[in-house]
Amino acid sequence: MTRVTIWNENVHERKNELVGKLYPEGIHGAIEAGLSKLDSGKSLSLGTATLEMPEHGLTEKVLAGTDVLIWWGHRAHGEVQDAIVDRVQQRVLEGMGLIVLHSGHFSKIFRRLMGTPCALKWREAGERERLWVVNPGHPIAEGIGPRIELENTEMYGEPFSIPEPEEQVFISWFEGGEVFRSGNCWHRGNGKIFYFRPGHETYPIYYNEEVLKVIFNAVKWAHRQGSWPEIAKAENVPVDKAPEPIKARGGSVH
Amino acid sequence: MTRVTIWNENVHERKNELVGKLYPEGIHGAIEAGLSKLDSGKSLSLGTATLEMPEHGLTEKVLAGTDVLIWWGHRAHGEVQDAIVDRVQQRVLEGMGLIVLHSGHFSKIFRRLMGTPCALKWREAGERERLWVVNPGHPIAEGIGPRIELENTEMYGEPFSIPEPEEQVFISWFEGGEVFRSGNCWHRGNGKIFYFRPGHETYPIYYNEEVLKVIFNAVKWAHRQGSWPEIAKAENVPVDKAPEPIKARGGSVH
Amino acid sequence: MTRVTIWNENVHERKNELVGKLYPEGIHGAIEAGLSKLDSGKSLSLGTATLEMPEHGLTEKVLAGTDVLIWWGHRAHGEVQDAIVDRVQQRVLEGMGLIVLHSGHFSKIFRRLMGTPCALKWREAGERERLWVVNPGHPIAEGIGPRIELENTEMYGEPFSIPEPEEQVFISWFEGGEVFRSGNCWHRGNGKIFYFRPGHETYPIYYNEEVLKVIFNAVKWAHRQGSWPEIAKAENVPVDKAPEPIKARGGSVH
Amino acid sequence: MTRVTIWNENVHERKNELVGKLYPEGIHGAIEAGLSKLDSGKSLSLGTATLEMPEHGLTEKVLAGTDVLIWWGHRAHGEVQDAIVDRVQQRVLEGMGLIVLHSGHFSKIFRRLMGTPCALKWREAGERERLWVVNPGHPIAEGIGPRIELENTEMYGEPFSIPEPEEQVFISWFEGGEVFRSGNCWHRGNGKIFYFRPGHETYPIYYNEEVLKVIFNAVKWAHRQGSWPEIAKAENVPVDKAPEPIKARGGSVH
Repeated sequence: MTRVTIWNENVHERKNELVGKLYPEGIHGAIEAGLSKLDSGKSLSLGTATLEMPEHGLTEKVLAGTDVLIWWGHRAHGEVQDAIVDRVQQRVLEGMGLIVLHSGHFSKIFRRLMGTPCALKWREAGERERLWVVNPGHPIAEGIGPRIELENTEMYGEPFSIPEPEEQVFISWFEGGEVFRSGNCWHRGNGKIFYFRPGHETYPIYYNEEVLKVIFNAVKWAHRQGSWPEIAKAENVPVDKAPEPIKARGGSVH
Repeated sequence: MTRVTIWNENVHERKNELVGKLYPEGIHGAIEAGLSKLDSGKSLSLGTATLEMPEHGLTEKVLAGTDVLIWWGHRAHGEVQDAIVDRVQQRVLEGMGLIVLHSGHFSKIFRRLMGTPCALKWREAGERERLWVVNPGHPIAEGIGPRIELENTEMYGEPFSIPEPEEQVFISWFEGGEVFRSGNCWHRGNGKIFYFRPGHETYPIYYNEEVLKVIFNAVKWAHRQGSWPEIAKAENVPVDKAPEPIKARGGSVH
Repeated sequence: MTRVTIWNENVHERKNELVGKLYPEGIHGAIEAGLSKLDSGKSLSLGTATLEMPEHGLTEKVLAGTDVLIWWGHRAHGEVQDAIVDRVQQRVLEGMGLIVLHSGHFSKIFRRLMGTPCALKWREAGERERLWVVNPGHPIAEGIGPRIELENTEMYGEPFSIPEPEEQVFISWFEGGEVFRSGNCWHRGNGKIFYFRPGHETYPIYYNEEVLKVIFNAVKWAHRQGSWPEIAKAENVPVDKAPEPIKARGGSVH
Repeated sequence: MTRVTIWNENVHERKNELVGKLYPEGIHGAIEAGLSKLDSGKSLSLGTATLEMPEHGLTEKVLAGTDVLIWWGHRAHGEVQDAIVDRVQQRVLEGMGLIVLHSGHFSKIFRRLMGTPCALKWREAGERERLWVVNPGHPIAEGIGPRIELENTEMYGEPFSIPEPEEQVFISWFEGGEVFRSGNCWHRGNGKIFYFRPGHETYPIYYNEEVLKVIFNAVKWAHRQGSWPEIAKAENVPVDKAPEPIKARGGSVH
């Protein structure tokens, strides 16, 4: 069983009429419904959380019970409290998977884990995007053909200021002439991170079956059994506990 | 010409008698003198900065005139102001080189750029360390034989919670039985980063000629000519500036 | 179900009395028995193959029915036919996992996939080795504590001329003063590759429960569901099959 | 001074009338002239070598005097002798830079160093290509703006079956709808390798000033001062030469 929490800032859905019509249950609701439909083996336990909830819905208890966190934000990145970002980061480092969607590239949590601005070029023109699979056989591309076509998308263009991806699964072609690394994998601590580009709120991207299948696959991929709870501890090993017998010599500040 | 700024918190040198005797000019002073001596070609322009200076000595002007920043801190990581860390991070992302020494593993700037805790095991017993070159021919190992031996060091042990190094130059063996990835390279944005382990303040490590040679080499390696000043900008490309002619379609939130 | 084939050159076991006594069923037999014992969930289907068999036991049929191949060789690397190496390489690229043990570092198949000599220093003195887990929570380290101690081993020392590992799981400390990257992961094509150092034939390494547990874990890790059978094909996309409508222009050599 | 050898199979130039007219001095001649023109500081020493020469022009002496080798081949990869490929590979591993151009993706030397098929999709339709710089400030992109436009090119499409690049400099957009990782960096041993896509023989690509500038930059980038001549040696360290005093124990096969 993989316990998934889908986080959404849920702002545009309530403030913008077009977005509200497209996603009446919120983007988190659409993703939850989509993953649920794909989960014929009942291997997922799905929950959601949003910005306006106490602690943004990401309490210690919720995070302790989450194997993979999905993150969508756009307009309100700055409203996410730093203390909650600290908490999420710690859980990722211990081993929780993290899937960052679309405009989540500018979220505090993603930029924290990358250490870079995660900036990019953009254009909202409803143009065609074609995501090419550059790594066939990768578990995140399972069941996907050589490419995914999306007729209307917001363009994201290079340079995308991220650390070099450890594995790339998708690279996008845009009708207007740009390219983008649109499906990228990293490890940070014991956590697996996947950035996936599609998802603009003015297009019905999260009803697209291939997009949902990729997110479903990424959830499976990001769920790691092991954990590393003491990742931030600086353990002292006293002289008499050294693996080989030694005697202390020289000066000391401790 | 490579413009180098050597930053040191300069606390233990003034508060601990042993350290003060070892490094009467401060660790920054010892490194400056050591690099100067190695710089027979007069290719370095050296400066220093310390915690107690206004803006920790890292003003906009100083950083704009720095190609490579060397960082030593231990006791006072928490006293470094976040705004200064932001500024240093931005300069690294644009292209300034960064060399992090020893206990700098826990500095704010290093943890920010890595996105991980950078924790490790430690023991202060003055034991023997042997740094093995795992990447002969790497510019940072130039002029160094197969290994460096340090008779008295503080031990740092694995696991070192860093992202997988992009290149490894040294791995250390310790008398007490541990190992450590002690010379590691990364890129973040356009900046090159090198972490180098030796340097405990109770031992005369920064008078060791091989240690100084490695730092000298790392300065050369980390100095990149190019820069990426707009790395954090999210540029909009209007429809009429798209490389290929397109027409806007669909909805918009912008 | 994961279908495993354990390959062994099986030369020293028959020619060297000491080795023959230690491994009366061959190293492949010891590993098979050890994995079988660990496989309480009956999730493995185990088979063996050796150098002296027709096609070294690695027929098209055997490889097609293998999800993960374990490789042990030492004395007879040169006797492995190039055509069989081609076949194994193709299967790895398509998605078969490969676990290379100890002196297999010099096998044709490993050097082919790495593109480098995979050389190292060595000493056969029965000294103590301590493998440190540098990546806790990694599936290959599951159930292993912070380190594995082996009282008698052959030493392998750096520099190990391999491409930079994508993930490191173990680094070894040796009594005689050396270090070694002893558990390393790579991808080549769709295949996952793990190199694991322990295993000298004059010591009972493959009866050690922790060593066997690591190999068991690595088998699980290396088994990828997806495959990329057409990885070596250079497909022509005719003009009229281009994803976007274009017209041919300019010259041609084809 | 950087000593450069430009290798070209030089077959199409002599057998195909169109190619012969475009490149009357051969592709190697065009690149040599282009690099020479850019080399205002006289920092390059340029030479050429071709398939039909004895030992393909890559004698021990020529390679010993080469810091960076540029490789162009297409039709005659199979005619390059394996012994010469061995020799080139050994020099790259020791530290010689290698720049592989366009159809050189299928050369023996590139596939050897990568360990993978290096296959891709292709279409010869003279379509437009736009190479985006994904790594601004990288030395290979020095002096290049955000993109290079080539009006007529052969298309190469993903998946490109290479190991994940260590650094990416360019990703291409094609008029017909594909994308391609068109500027990629790796290390193998002490050698630096750059693959650069542009260069089909039926278009005047090697007269394009930006393409030549990239090759010029790559030559500078790939020239490493250090070397690792003993990379393929497996040195024995006798017990009495161990860094730490030990006594031999246990059995031995050596």
